[in-house]
Amino acid sequence: MDRFFSDNAAAACPAVMDALAAANRLDAAYDGDAWSARLNAAFSEVFGRQVEALWVTTGTAANSIGLAMLCPPTGAILCHRDAHIENDEAGAPAMYNGGAKLMLLDGPGAKVTPQAVEAACARIRPDVHQVQPAALSITNATEYGLTYSAAETGALGELAKSRGLGFQLDGARFANAVVSTGASPADLTWRAGVDVMSFGFVKNGGMSAEALILFDPALAERAKVLRKRSGHLLSKGRYLAAQLLAMLDGDVWLDNARAANAAARKLAEAAGERLVHPVEANELFVRMTPDEASRIRAQGFDFYDWAPGEVRLVTSWDQDMEAVAKLAAAIETL
Amino acid sequence: MDRFFSDNAAAACPAVMDALAAANRLDAAYDGDAWSARLNAAFSEVFGRQVEALWVTTGTAANSIGLAMLCPPTGAILCHRDAHIENDEAGAPAMYNGGAKLMLLDGPGAKVTPQAVEAACARIRPDVHQVQPAALSITNATEYGLTYSAAETGALGELAKSRGLGFQLDGARFANAVVSTGASPADLTWRAGVDVMSFGFVKNGGMSAEALILFDPALAERAKVLRKRSGHLLSKGRYLAAQLLAMLDGDVWLDNARAANAAARKLAEAAGERLVHPVEANELFVRMTPDEASRIRAQGFDFYDWAPGEVRLVTSWDQDMEAVAKLAAAIETL
Amino acid sequence: MDRFFSDNAAAACPAVMDALAAANRLDAAYDGDAWSARLNAAFSEVFGRQVEALWVTTGTAANSIGLAMLCPPTGAILCHRDAHIENDEAGAPAMYNGGAKLMLLDGPGAKVTPQAVEAACARIRPDVHQVQPAALSITNATEYGLTYSAAETGALGELAKSRGLGFQLDGARFANAVVSTGASPADLTWRAGVDVMSFGFVKNGGMSAEALILFDPALAERAKVLRKRSGHLLSKGRYLAAQLLAMLDGDVWLDNARAANAAARKLAEAAGERLVHPVEANELFVRMTPDEASRIRAQGFDFYDWAPGEVRLVTSWDQDMEAVAKLAAAIETL
Amino acid sequence: MDRFFSDNAAAACPAVMDALAAANRLDAAYDGDAWSARLNAAFSEVFGRQVEALWVTTGTAANSIGLAMLCPPTGAILCHRDAHIENDEAGAPAMYNGGAKLMLLDGPGAKVTPQAVEAACARIRPDVHQVQPAALSITNATEYGLTYSAAETGALGELAKSRGLGFQLDGARFANAVVSTGASPADLTWRAGVDVMSFGFVKNGGMSAEALILFDPALAERAKVLRKRSGHLLSKGRYLAAQLLAMLDGDVWLDNARAANAAARKLAEAAGERLVHPVEANELFVRMTPDEASRIRAQGFDFYDWAPGEVRLVTSWDQDMEAVAKLAAAIETL
Repeated sequence: MDRFFSDNAAAACPAVMDALAAANRLDAAYDGDAWSARLNAAFSEVFGRQVEALWVTTGTAANSIGLAMLCPPTGAILCHRDAHIENDEAGAPAMYNGGAKLMLLDGPGAKVTPQAVEAACARIRPDVHQVQPAALSITNATEYGLTYSAAETGALGELAKSRGLGFQLDGARFANAVVSTGASPADLTWRAGVDVMSFGFVKNGGMSAEALILFDPALAERAKVLRKRSGHLLSKGRYLAAQLLAMLDGDVWLDNARAANAAARKLAEAAGERLVHPVEANELFVRMTPDEASRIRAQGFDFYDWAPGEVRLVTSWDQDMEAVAKLAAAIETL
Repeated sequence: MDRFFSDNAAAACPAVMDALAAANRLDAAYDGDAWSARLNAAFSEVFGRQVEALWVTTGTAANSIGLAMLCPPTGAILCHRDAHIENDEAGAPAMYNGGAKLMLLDGPGAKVTPQAVEAACARIRPDVHQVQPAALSITNATEYGLTYSAAETGALGELAKSRGLGFQLDGARFANAVVSTGASPADLTWRAGVDVMSFGFVKNGGMSAEALILFDPALAERAKVLRKRSGHLLSKGRYLAAQLLAMLDGDVWLDNARAANAAARKLAEAAGERLVHPVEANELFVRMTPDEASRIRAQGFDFYDWAPGEVRLVTSWDQDMEAVAKLAAAIETL
Repeated sequence: MDRFFSDNAAAACPAVMDALAAANRLDAAYDGDAWSARLNAAFSEVFGRQVEALWVTTGTAANSIGLAMLCPPTGAILCHRDAHIENDEAGAPAMYNGGAKLMLLDGPGAKVTPQAVEAACARIRPDVHQVQPAALSITNATEYGLTYSAAETGALGELAKSRGLGFQLDGARFANAVVSTGASPADLTWRAGVDVMSFGFVKNGGMSAEALILFDPALAERAKVLRKRSGHLLSKGRYLAAQLLAMLDGDVWLDNARAANAAARKLAEAAGERLVHPVEANELFVRMTPDEASRIRAQGFDFYDWAPGEVRLVTSWDQDMEAVAKLAAAIETL
Repeated sequence: MDRFFSDNAAAACPAVMDALAAANRLDAAYDGDAWSARLNAAFSEVFGRQVEALWVTTGTAANSIGLAMLCPPTGAILCHRDAHIENDEAGAPAMYNGGAKLMLLDGPGAKVTPQAVEAACARIRPDVHQVQPAALSITNATEYGLTYSAAETGALGELAKSRGLGFQLDGARFANAVVSTGASPADLTWRAGVDVMSFGFVKNGGMSAEALILFDPALAERAKVLRKRSGHLLSKGRYLAAQLLAMLDGDVWLDNARAANAAARKLAEAAGERLVHPVEANELFVRMTPDEASRIRAQGFDFYDWAPGEVRLVTSWDQDMEAVAKLAAAIETL
């Protein structure tokens, strides 16, 4: 059975396993260890500027702590209706900042457009009776596998700035977006006005470590307090830091994403007209009747039924390319 | 340099490292995997009754989720003034349940007495103006390395019940308490009236997994929602479940605690009259002048200065017994 | 200048002013006084069953406390996109229950339909990743001056029950709905499945008192704690209770609403085809060009510009019927 | 029966009742009316500098909104163990700011001393594991009827500043403190470093209006949002503003406090050695056996049993001085 359920479910990559073994000795607790001490420098090199990087164990934590830096309890976060923070985090952002509201935007492929942001802001009266927008959140790559280019991100960043909104990036699949767009990490983030981001590793071959990146180092102190208060300051933090360092080292994170994207592209070519959205990362949404889906599954492949007549395929860093080729052929012969 | 800083900082034990390697393959995400599916049964065997067991990554999360099951936002949690939830969790319990207050009790060695609980309850008028106590929390072994016997726990449990209080146990060092008291896990918990507990693994040789145990399975649904909402539902949860199972299997958790306790006992014998508290687990608080402490450190040992004229030594599952013997000798010759 | 801005801005009615004078003597503090003691009985008579009635000073407090009885911090409240709790309460419901989310429904005239509720529920996967609906809130009369009949309310109540949702009624203009529909207070509320409601008085001739009605008396204890905790337990509560009693006494509340509704009906007849929504209570939304609006204002009337080409007129319990007639004439001659 | 229960329970004074009648006409809603517009100027004159003044209906709301301006969700508020915010507000401060913790100080007569503040701060490690103090709150006059002089307040203010703590004053009986100390409102507040205060009117002859005073006008915007979000922005706010203006006008607030204090002084002279605390405002705590208390009650006086062998007497602005003289005589003849 070859599974195309979710990159969430894949194994951890060898670099990560090796790093865990190497870190398996006594060091200082929490984030006082030698690995954690190297994080800021390692991520600063990725981004070409000084950043603060905090390890956490989930994207939900990284998103929620980051958003709490930008949005007060009384404010609102603008995001797409299909965003992970709206649909898949059980209301975590409101728990972390004490009640913030998500204001939902529409747009194809889960992408936020400047027009949608403008329209949402225009609907709000600037008075004490209405919750006022305080932050904008986007996801790159999106929940439907689309990417924002550096220019698209920059346009949203400028708009956010002009409206006084903080700008957060959910980068659960940031690596896939970087290799897909060819843009630099810097151009897709701080140069485009992003203030904080969650930088995903787990879907990309990590085991249990994600990074919260603060482009404004002044935010780090508050973020560290909230990481502790939310129960995310692990006492043996070195095992998280080691995972992140191992994947940055030698660009494992980019190689892994390239592999996943390549597998998706291969399937996308086979799916052709059946695709619901352009495939720009490692997710495919494919029109398929229940009967067609059954026939594919009968050949040993598994995946989600996403909507009536539509399935979702997700490829991972370690997807077996032979299986991919077989699945592509199976789709083509439908 | 031999360190006696904290069991928080020790390495992960071989059983845990092996389990991580064995779990390193694709399975279902979150807690849908084969390892997570075995948790309830494994812990139910430990406790001799049906329990629900949830993995989380920190004791702070386990404590806070558990307490939120017992105390509404408008209620108070009675705990010792030196409890971890009061002093070392950055206010997490209040974040998790929406504002609960900790009402602080005094008592030697960080132990809660029935008298202290009674006195605290008696001070509260039963009206809407005062925050009403809703839960009692104790720590076994305590922050000062003392243990509660089954009888002591049971007396508190009865009192809690009679006062309508939920009863939570912070078991960050539960293993050390079990081997020290010789009492069964059941007698130290549910038979003594405990409703929920955090069951510590990380200080005892785990890497990044703790367990939240719910003796009332009806609480599991809400607890799972809060685990997700607080960002603690890791997508590759099997790596946490595998750690817990590996340490329960063959009683590794008890062996590790025995080793740590034995090391502490050895040092306690050497410290004799210098001990501030009885040594019933793996922590020692030893009277030592700054000059004496320097002399010990000069011999290659490190540890915390706890208070003026007092140092703290903590032993771990993997403490080198030769180093322990040398430190014991060094203390004796002071 | 005759103002048709808002019933929020009108004077307090004579019965209320008299009651305040009569209550102006020493009595017990908070809600221990003679007036507060009569509230439950007075409202129970209105509703034909035993209810618990709590005075508060604002509809926001009444709504938020009531909703917090029905929706946990981790749940969601279904309401119309144009509901007061969504648009005009600054996120109060989330503050009161610790983070609840509002799930927004569409529908003409700010009315919630069973279809919209069903569709919203159907979109939610029953898992821990999504916030689960816990309560349904409707407003009668709605923000656009429409009413729900007893049958319409009952259909929503049945649906709520079948979905396990609590059912809250924002009755800021409940009096207007009662006199407009001719239905009994009982038929519009608990007989239709409503669990809690805010019963508005301020827009209807009160000064500073609203009522929170709990049809399940078991909810009263928690509601009283939250009233206190949110700072709404006034120390001289008798002045609030007295206002409510004065308006229930001799059906002043119904007379006042009849007057406001009658004034609105008079204007509605004049507006005819210009009406954006049917006029079933005391609010009118009237199509009017800016130039037309200016001409009306020039004749001494004032009101809100609601949307491009649309104005809002609200009538009050004390609206001068001569002025109403003049305004009606002015509208007719546009 | 002459009652000495609480100033909370007294009638509203004539100036307030007259003001309500005068305000009983249509004006703009919320705080857009003519009375609310005069508040800042009126209070600025009292304090001899520009302040922002917001009406609310309870001291709990005034305290909680004010404290939320000074203390983040992750911080702590230092206050006396007997403070109203700790004992009598049902945890409201934590609800308003999202979880803040109260750190309790000891000291005779419910007075906070610089030593107690220093000691509490010294106990806190400056790390992310402990909740860090963010604000200091005192009550003048205290819950036991003692006052802080301008110098005492100033010493605390300086200490707060040096520790980076905001400084809040609970002035539920501020009028009593002003007339008792003879200090100016300015010297007891902003000149002494106070950032925000609740300025009490209800215990001093008001009906339902208290003032939140912000000495830093930059805080007003956030405070207004929180007033709305907490349900304290009444739609007919003019009735609250009118009460405050009426009591400031002609120094009614000072006259009322003088009357209450004078009554208390008269009783204090009679109580002499029986007094538990010095009587510096309008509260007396008097040692009295149950039998003695019964004998006094038999003569037509009522009051609280405060503690075994101790009763509390509170005098109000409208206390009948003949009854006071009789009670004084009764106490003397015990």
